[in-house]
Amino acid sequence: MPTVYITAPPDDANEIAETLVEERLAACVNRLSTTSTYRWDGEIHHDDEAVLLAKTTDGAYDDLVERVQALHPHDVPCIECFDEADVLESFATWRAESVD
Amino acid sequence: MPTVYITAPPDDANEIAETLVEERLAACVNRLSTTSTYRWDGEIHHDDEAVLLAKTTDGAYDDLVERVQALHPHDVPCIECFDEADVLESFATWRAESVD
Amino acid sequence: MPTVYITAPPDDANEIAETLVEERLAACVNRLSTTSTYRWDGEIHHDDEAVLLAKTTDGAYDDLVERVQALHPHDVPCIECFDEADVLESFATWRAESVD
Repeated sequence: MPTVYITAPPDDANEIAETLVEERLAACVNRLSTTSTYRWDGEIHHDDEAVLLAKTTDGAYDDLVERVQALHPHDVPCIECFDEADVLESFATWRAESVD
Repeated sequence: MPTVYITAPPDDANEIAETLVEERLAACVNRLSTTSTYRWDGEIHHDDEAVLLAKTTDGAYDDLVERVQALHPHDVPCIECFDEADVLESFATWRAESVD
Repeated sequence: MPTVYITAPPDDANEIAETLVEERLAACVNRLSTTSTYRWDGEIHHDDEAVLLAKTTDGAYDDLVERVQALHPHDVPCIECFDEADVLESFATWRAESVD
């Protein structure tokens, strides 16, 4: 099942994490502080951001992506999905029950 | 080979990381600070926790999971496994030699 | 496409992140602070390091790995590749255009 990797400005990240859990699109979200280095319009930028790792289900994944795009302030947000190779069964059960 | 993704309260995370390396269940563990947002008993919680990323082998994986469950204070810990698509050969060799 | 997981000492991590984006080997690099626990020469160490998550393409991956090895101060650096199961299409397009 998916772990969704999202980067966002710090304040927006808090709102996205809260909303995804509030609306049962993710069972839990881990928020980590990061510095993002990237090139935009030919210039290199270093921005303080957050990485969000949202634990969800295959069934809720498309709705989660759509919701993040609606909340995210950037035109081209980083939203990627990584599938686990294995997971503790009790955690998988809890995750599935926590998501609509 | 597995990177095991574990979340735990900060103090327990230190003990888990130390134990996994001490007992040769992981070659190394990266510990990152996180804020976890989740729903439990109908309430949304925000907890300071740690994400542990433990680098291990296929052979040691089951023992590692069992050990983390024994050390972890939660009934339903987040323990997930992500397999890499590629790895530097010298690192893979070192990891295999560091794990029993 | 690859997310490359690299650990490095904090100062080297900044140089690696900057170089990878500067030389168009990665579209962006997320830098996260970590404490690494590992065994080396029989002793357990705890080092402050950084985790770099470099977003690149299949075509640039080998050159990126070679460049990180050249810049990295350790003989056996952690360089691993994780392929996403899905990605927002606009982000994938931007990433491909940002990398040579």
